[in-house]
Amino acid sequence: MSAEFSFTLNASDGPARTGVIDTPRGEIRTPAFMPVGTAGTVKAMLIDHVRETGADIVLGNTYHLMLRPTAERVASLGGLHQFMNWPRPILTDSGGFQVMSLSKLRKLTEDGVAFQSHIDGSRHMLTPERSIEIQCLLGSDIQMQLDECPAIPIEHGAARESMLLSARWAERSKRAFEEKSKPGQALFGIVQGANYEDLRRESLDKLMQIGFPGYSIGGLAVGEGREEMFRVLEFTTPHMDAARPRYLMGVGKPADIVGAVARGVDMFDCVAPTRSGRHGQAWTRAGAVNIKNAGFADDPSPLDPGSTCPASRDYSKAYLHHLFRAGEYLGPMLLTWHNLHYYQELMAGMRAAIAAGRFADFVAQFRAETGEEIV
Amino acid sequence: MSAEFSFTLNASDGPARTGVIDTPRGEIRTPAFMPVGTAGTVKAMLIDHVRETGADIVLGNTYHLMLRPTAERVASLGGLHQFMNWPRPILTDSGGFQVMSLSKLRKLTEDGVAFQSHIDGSRHMLTPERSIEIQCLLGSDIQMQLDECPAIPIEHGAARESMLLSARWAERSKRAFEEKSKPGQALFGIVQGANYEDLRRESLDKLMQIGFPGYSIGGLAVGEGREEMFRVLEFTTPHMDAARPRYLMGVGKPADIVGAVARGVDMFDCVAPTRSGRHGQAWTRAGAVNIKNAGFADDPSPLDPGSTCPASRDYSKAYLHHLFRAGEYLGPMLLTWHNLHYYQELMAGMRAAIAAGRFADFVAQFRAETGEEIV
Repeated sequence: MSAEFSFTLNASDGPARTGVIDTPRGEIRTPAFMPVGTAGTVKAMLIDHVRETGADIVLGNTYHLMLRPTAERVASLGGLHQFMNWPRPILTDSGGFQVMSLSKLRKLTEDGVAFQSHIDGSRHMLTPERSIEIQCLLGSDIQMQLDECPAIPIEHGAARESMLLSARWAERSKRAFEEKSKPGQALFGIVQGANYEDLRRESLDKLMQIGFPGYSIGGLAVGEGREEMFRVLEFTTPHMDAARPRYLMGVGKPADIVGAVARGVDMFDCVAPTRSGRHGQAWTRAGAVNIKNAGFADDPSPLDPGSTCPASRDYSKAYLHHLFRAGEYLGPMLLTWHNLHYYQELMAGMRAAIAAGRFADFVAQFRAETGEEIV
Repeated sequence: MSAEFSFTLNASDGPARTGVIDTPRGEIRTPAFMPVGTAGTVKAMLIDHVRETGADIVLGNTYHLMLRPTAERVASLGGLHQFMNWPRPILTDSGGFQVMSLSKLRKLTEDGVAFQSHIDGSRHMLTPERSIEIQCLLGSDIQMQLDECPAIPIEHGAARESMLLSARWAERSKRAFEEKSKPGQALFGIVQGANYEDLRRESLDKLMQIGFPGYSIGGLAVGEGREEMFRVLEFTTPHMDAARPRYLMGVGKPADIVGAVARGVDMFDCVAPTRSGRHGQAWTRAGAVNIKNAGFADDPSPLDPGSTCPASRDYSKAYLHHLFRAGEYLGPMLLTWHNLHYYQELMAGMRAAIAAGRFADFVAQFRAETGEEIV
């Protein structure tokens, strides 16, 4: 642990990289997957088990937390780490993405975005400054600038307007962060520009002029498809500062992550392992299976007999099937645990393969085992 | 662990007793509280944590398991212990009580009870023989005879008819058990007779003539109230075989249990700690609290800072309050864990007090701390 936020690149294998982000709250080994703890809890998980799966960092959602229990309340209770009993690093988003996807009656202006809570209809204003204020109240270790995240497809002109607004908000975010943050905390800028190469370059140039200790890639995984996402990464990551961590926001399924690591990305977050776990989908080395399928009713084998994770090793598929059929809490609990463990094993496998200069073999094996064609 | 089922009484303090039930699957320290694992899972709990709270035995519900996933399927998967990953003792009820409370179109005859499943409307017949067959398929260590459990109030004549039917079923159950069971498994007879002293005595006489390694007290906690339940225990337990364990079925809240131990009962089961935990109620040394109350929104104190249970010790009431307000899985998970730990600590406290000859002090302190007047 360091008193400062820093990133050390330990090895590269083609565009794929492995390293360590050092923070006052602990190390984050990259490539890193960050489980999503939307409302101060990684859904259906005990936080000690999140750590045991191999997670170095979890994500909190500014939009949810500002509305309930409120950032001010979390601060008065000692901050988000103490609130959720997780002493290690926490990354927060800016709240902007979820305002646009979840809230009612939102109105975007140069100043920020006014909206009504989806919970109780209360009115709020999220500006770059307010977003940073909230993230500092939460005590977030890695904070995000407020940005606008348009869907793809979007016309070039509109995409550029939006990207320029995000760039102006990046500057305001940095100024607010410099006033409010504590030593060792970091603010990331977010590259926008939809799927236009010139706009991604322009966005990146503006952000690098402002200067951030890490850069996020936003505006992907918004419906463009895996191939298009990979195409955008291929013309974006080569121009990013190699000495800074690169975070692909909201991504993704295992094949998305493996493919993005192959294209130079270091950090990921996604609700896929937790959400799909709650709905009966298990990620395994042989791909995804739906445990609710009748074929599992009599299957005595566990999801992964060789796993170190109790959820993967100690319960038959027949039992997991039964738990989901009976609507028992334990079904989502075990399958979420299994999925997060699978994700962290995947990340650990990639880190080891990159360090050993065998990442191409890793990708080939992943492709063969899962049957994924585009990785 | 013993190859046989046996009960050793270690100490008495007035009517209160402490001892050990020995089974091939492990010891059960009495007075014992058995968490309810209705459908093969103690709801919202990891089974390892059930054990860590101090539980020596859990309960499974024959009615639920016979319908889903079916006893035959559990047997083909290695039995209920393996299915739910709990190697220690399991007690099962006969299914009769829940047929009468949950199923549709039930019809009671001398032979047994015909009913339709509440899940899919399928038709089933539960006889004393079929109940034992199911409990043996599940691999239950402590099995219950099929009985009829009428509500109180009930007229004397009807109560006697019902009690006599249960006594005839006790005999048929024992015959079936002798055919189907494995060494070390035990079948308990169930004392019925509503709140009539003569009927409880007659029921007990009939059961003791048949002979069982343990006796259950059924037909209580069916609406008669705590005082009346204690009155029935006071004229029932003194006539029960002191060398056999006594199990008060479906009881209860902490004050019910403390009062019943004071009246000579050894074993208990109840959904109270698990069900109330899922609904936001926490049992504490100072009585029950509803964590959803607005007053807890800013309360930084945990439920029990001195506890060895992480759920009681490591999370603020404000956090638990937030989890319930936000509808998060972790709320029921933590509160169920806390409640089961509280119950097991209560049982451990009673066992120690009885062994030390200080049970009256224990009851006085319990009464003072919780404010319960009838114990």
